[in-house]
Amino acid sequence: MNCGIIVAGGRAQRMGPDVDKAFLSLGSKPVLVYSLMAFEKCTEIDEVILVVRKERVESARCAVQMFGCTKVKKIVAGGTQRQISVANGMAEMGEEVTLVAVHDGARPCVTSALIAETIRSARQYGSGVAAIKITDTVKEVEKDMIISRTVDRTKLWRVQTPQAFKRELLEKAFAVIRKKKLTVTDEASAIELISRAVRLVPSSSSNIKITTPDDLVLAAALMRL
Amino acid sequence: MNCGIIVAGGRAQRMGPDVDKAFLSLGSKPVLVYSLMAFEKCTEIDEVILVVRKERVESARCAVQMFGCTKVKKIVAGGTQRQISVANGMAEMGEEVTLVAVHDGARPCVTSALIAETIRSARQYGSGVAAIKITDTVKEVEKDMIISRTVDRTKLWRVQTPQAFKRELLEKAFAVIRKKKLTVTDEASAIELISRAVRLVPSSSSNIKITTPDDLVLAAALMRL
Repeated sequence: MNCGIIVAGGRAQRMGPDVDKAFLSLGSKPVLVYSLMAFEKCTEIDEVILVVRKERVESARCAVQMFGCTKVKKIVAGGTQRQISVANGMAEMGEEVTLVAVHDGARPCVTSALIAETIRSARQYGSGVAAIKITDTVKEVEKDMIISRTVDRTKLWRVQTPQAFKRELLEKAFAVIRKKKLTVTDEASAIELISRAVRLVPSSSSNIKITTPDDLVLAAALMRL
Repeated sequence: MNCGIIVAGGRAQRMGPDVDKAFLSLGSKPVLVYSLMAFEKCTEIDEVILVVRKERVESARCAVQMFGCTKVKKIVAGGTQRQISVANGMAEMGEEVTLVAVHDGARPCVTSALIAETIRSARQYGSGVAAIKITDTVKEVEKDMIISRTVDRTKLWRVQTPQAFKRELLEKAFAVIRKKKLTVTDEASAIELISRAVRLVPSSSSNIKITTPDDLVLAAALMRL
């Protein structure tokens, strides 16, 4: 069985104080619900665990019920860091789960097809992480918006979610970061820490993350809401 | 006076052989025309020089006429590299021009407001380059889609266009790269080569570059075409 873990714990500092971006309205639904529905429709996903801030567990339960997300098996409280939230979600997985796709609830434009791609890559290669090649020139900025250098972009990819892995691999990586008290920005980085190759799956520039009010407009346009 | 140089010389290998992305249809107009119209409406722009492939000069002339782009003063043939195309455009600028905004014709979602911002930054600081902070985790990929390392993203910005500069600064930089036979991916890199600070202007994630068929769909959605 394959499990989706959707993490919706992040606050959006750029949206104003105490704004929970996954619960903002996007068209007629909260941001988070679009991801839930993509996982619901994905035939490669058997169950979903939803991780939200403690204060949001009840709202999340209502949303799940209202929009008929029948694959959601558990709604659990997250932590102060993404890795804690993901670990909390993993702790609730059924025993039969062999593949896990972790997804950021602030990426509402994810498609069932992309989720399935990452799962298939994880089945075959151990990992499948949605990513897109950087096509713009990349600059490093020191301060006051002044460029300090140009970075060689030819090998650079921006990783997104879903990030899918064999369960045993992700559990092993998480045990290591916990033991060594390390902080990682995503699951792929955790896998890299245990020196395992991580494979990318080409995604689309449409799979944006909501971080600014601008991005909400963009997401609405993308989904023609 | 301020001059906009719009470069539309790039072929899109990812679109199929011999496709000129600035001349693809987007809604009811060629991709390029959206940029022309944004420059037309921008009060900080006095004249526009359009640089296209030699075979496209006539089509460009028709488009300029058809869509009433009265600020276009010259349509010139570009070269095999962006820097040659930009230099060809700069050679045609009027003597009174003091600020130049170089723009990629494959970025149809540019706004008059963003063009004006880069010009104002150039007037005050010498340069103003549209850019957005990278919010996704960045990975370096060696081959076969396998991650070789995670890059520190906290200081990374993706630069876009418009890239505006004081004319004398850009001319000096171009003289240096010509003399030293260097290749640069954008004008900001040329300025960096003469060790001058380049200032970024925060842009929007909507200001996308058309590089894949996917991006055409995205641009259409963004502009609600």
